[in-house]
Amino acid sequence: MDILEKLKWRYATKKFDATAYVSQEKLNLIKEAFNLTATSYGLQPIKLVIIKNKELQAELVEHSMNQAQVGQASHILVFCIETKIDSAFIESYFNRIKDIRNTPDKILNPFKDFLIQDFKDKPSSYIKDWAIKQAYLAMGNLLTVCAIENIDSCPMEGFTPERYDEILDLTNKGLESVLVMPIGYRDKDDMFAGFKKVRKTVAESIVEL
Amino acid sequence: MDILEKLKWRYATKKFDATAYVSQEKLNLIKEAFNLTATSYGLQPIKLVIIKNKELQAELVEHSMNQAQVGQASHILVFCIETKIDSAFIESYFNRIKDIRNTPDKILNPFKDFLIQDFKDKPSSYIKDWAIKQAYLAMGNLLTVCAIENIDSCPMEGFTPERYDEILDLTNKGLESVLVMPIGYRDKDDMFAGFKKVRKTVAESIVEL
Repeated sequence: MDILEKLKWRYATKKFDATAYVSQEKLNLIKEAFNLTATSYGLQPIKLVIIKNKELQAELVEHSMNQAQVGQASHILVFCIETKIDSAFIESYFNRIKDIRNTPDKILNPFKDFLIQDFKDKPSSYIKDWAIKQAYLAMGNLLTVCAIENIDSCPMEGFTPERYDEILDLTNKGLESVLVMPIGYRDKDDMFAGFKKVRKTVAESIVEL
Repeated sequence: MDILEKLKWRYATKKFDATAYVSQEKLNLIKEAFNLTATSYGLQPIKLVIIKNKELQAELVEHSMNQAQVGQASHILVFCIETKIDSAFIESYFNRIKDIRNTPDKILNPFKDFLIQDFKDKPSSYIKDWAIKQAYLAMGNLLTVCAIENIDSCPMEGFTPERYDEILDLTNKGLESVLVMPIGYRDKDDMFAGFKKVRKTVAESIVEL
């Protein structure tokens, strides 16, 4: 597999084939890949909401700057952050380590105590921004994973999070939407598919020291 | 290639084999992959600084919370944002579109004018945060690309950007460091390599609607 060929094949798909669906097998792969994303301290302050419901998708279009791909795509991935990142949230992470690795408390506790205090000392706006960054990292992973699996996608910041949160009942789930990514298969008429990629030259993007 | 196997193989490498180097061929692939990362509006407000210099790396260790992997790794990738995202920066993007796609001005100008005004209206702190998020997206891509290529890596937020900016003379280059990612090959003694991955269950990470 030539990863560069896959990354060149990827583009922000603006028109999806509304009759083509990502298989359950590929969807399971995407879920696992999301869950395997690296996150800061391993805390995973993010969740992925997956929508496969054309009626619901149609409702979201007007809250997505009227971008039609939200209505057409096979599935909509909504990258969310946890709204409550408190001591209990951090405790649950250390409980996971204990369960999975059998690490003794006396090894875990000093770092756990540090992290709980550290998060207590930080303003909530800082913690929210920190979580949002992890959502971007996860989308960076999934854009590449989808390209490798020949699944088209469109990374989107242009939507109204408050309306998504309301329509998808995210607030009650303790979540806030951060990024949207329709996935599926490009329509044969999507004129954007044929456009040359616009990028700086590699020399402009890289500094070697 | 089983992408999930690759993502499971990846871990935050804490001890690199200081004598093992990423080949020039693989490094070229990483550069290209960075440049192919999706960014908001396609504006690419990021650059990748690549360090291959053990003396310089040794100097950076103490500004990286004394994390030894910065000194050992084959190369250090420093994800940076552009400090000056002004009208000229946006113009240069539209000039690239014109050069690459031959798109006429009358097609490009309305969106160009909108974008220039939009960025003028936004506080500089907002624009900086926007650029930082793109750096996270790019690191999300490169963590996966490196895993595919069997290159070890360690995603790092824990360093002192001001000291990196000074030591690497980034300010004069119009850059600010955001993320650090040593790459190379795991040392056979890295005890973290054998640890089980700690993750939520997929059911805990995903909400299906």
